[in-house]
Amino acid sequence: MAEYIAPIQRLIEEFRKIPGVGAKTAARYAFAVLNLSEAEASRFADAIIGIKRDVYKCPVCHGLSAREGECDICSSFDRDKSLVCVVEEAKDVITMEKIRGFRGVYHVLGGVLSPLDRVTPRDLNLASLKERVEGGGIAEVVVATNPTPKGDATAAYIVRMLEGSEVKISRLAYGIPVGADIEYADEVTLFRAMEGRRNINDEG
Amino acid sequence: MAEYIAPIQRLIEEFRKIPGVGAKTAARYAFAVLNLSEAEASRFADAIIGIKRDVYKCPVCHGLSAREGECDICSSFDRDKSLVCVVEEAKDVITMEKIRGFRGVYHVLGGVLSPLDRVTPRDLNLASLKERVEGGGIAEVVVATNPTPKGDATAAYIVRMLEGSEVKISRLAYGIPVGADIEYADEVTLFRAMEGRRNINDEG
Repeated sequence: MAEYIAPIQRLIEEFRKIPGVGAKTAARYAFAVLNLSEAEASRFADAIIGIKRDVYKCPVCHGLSAREGECDICSSFDRDKSLVCVVEEAKDVITMEKIRGFRGVYHVLGGVLSPLDRVTPRDLNLASLKERVEGGGIAEVVVATNPTPKGDATAAYIVRMLEGSEVKISRLAYGIPVGADIEYADEVTLFRAMEGRRNINDEG
Repeated sequence: MAEYIAPIQRLIEEFRKIPGVGAKTAARYAFAVLNLSEAEASRFADAIIGIKRDVYKCPVCHGLSAREGECDICSSFDRDKSLVCVVEEAKDVITMEKIRGFRGVYHVLGGVLSPLDRVTPRDLNLASLKERVEGGGIAEVVVATNPTPKGDATAAYIVRMLEGSEVKISRLAYGIPVGADIEYADEVTLFRAMEGRRNINDEG
């Protein structure tokens, strides 16, 4: 017995399927589960089954929903359906929702364009974005992909794809984080901040 | 919706029960599970149930076993039953087994003495160690508790508990790790290394 016994080894291998979890961490997690009560372990297992069973995709925005059909955001009367924020992943919706002020709706791409990883426009929810825009009623699309080469390429693709439609397309402002010191900002961020500078004397 | 939807939140909370897993890490793990296929998630859930259902405690050494009754080590004819290595936790057995050369058996304490955490001798497998030693057939007990204050106190307790028995009691050698540089060893390790120094000219 140079290895763990089978039931432990099996759970270690399951934990290792989570990106970023190595062999030692997975072993630590497996022993933590072993220390749970039977009831707690059963709740844990149920929660894993439940996240696959009870999470639905919204047919409009492709975001996550706790029920079939349109999600809470898409079906809300409080939301401005003419303002669509495009994000990479479903979890980005939750991040954006932290800005309590945003009253628009979302469109989840399900990734970014990446030819090397064979992610083409067909693999993302781009056609449905085009349909939504062409369907009318949308005034502005805010592209909130990450400021990475892939996120930038995806944003550029969206601009090209929606060319000719009447819709305004904008992108989140990238710059110095609030509360940060300019001294510690990297060059790319500084460049973006300079590029995105805004008039503050009302003459702009 | 400023929070995650219920099925996601539930799994995040389960992951957070693992010591050392914070809110952000738990959320990352939950989304990783969401990205698994239904079959993979079901295997993961089964492994959690399985680790509780299929792992038994060996009635002799209190180590983990894949079946009821004595574990593979305790029931092996290859093992020297007169040499008992006392470790803190079941997982320490696996660590010790990495020394392929060790042919003795084990005794898992299930923790260390810690009055502040209300861990008293009664909470550890100490009475059964005494019984094993008094039952006869044991020549040496190697105490392999960690070189921490609690591990040291537990080792001292074992020495006192077994006083009067004929058995030899030893402790793992603590010193400079093989391959390490003396320059970087901390004082306590250096002190232990000096204390545990051994003759190398065969005159000892």
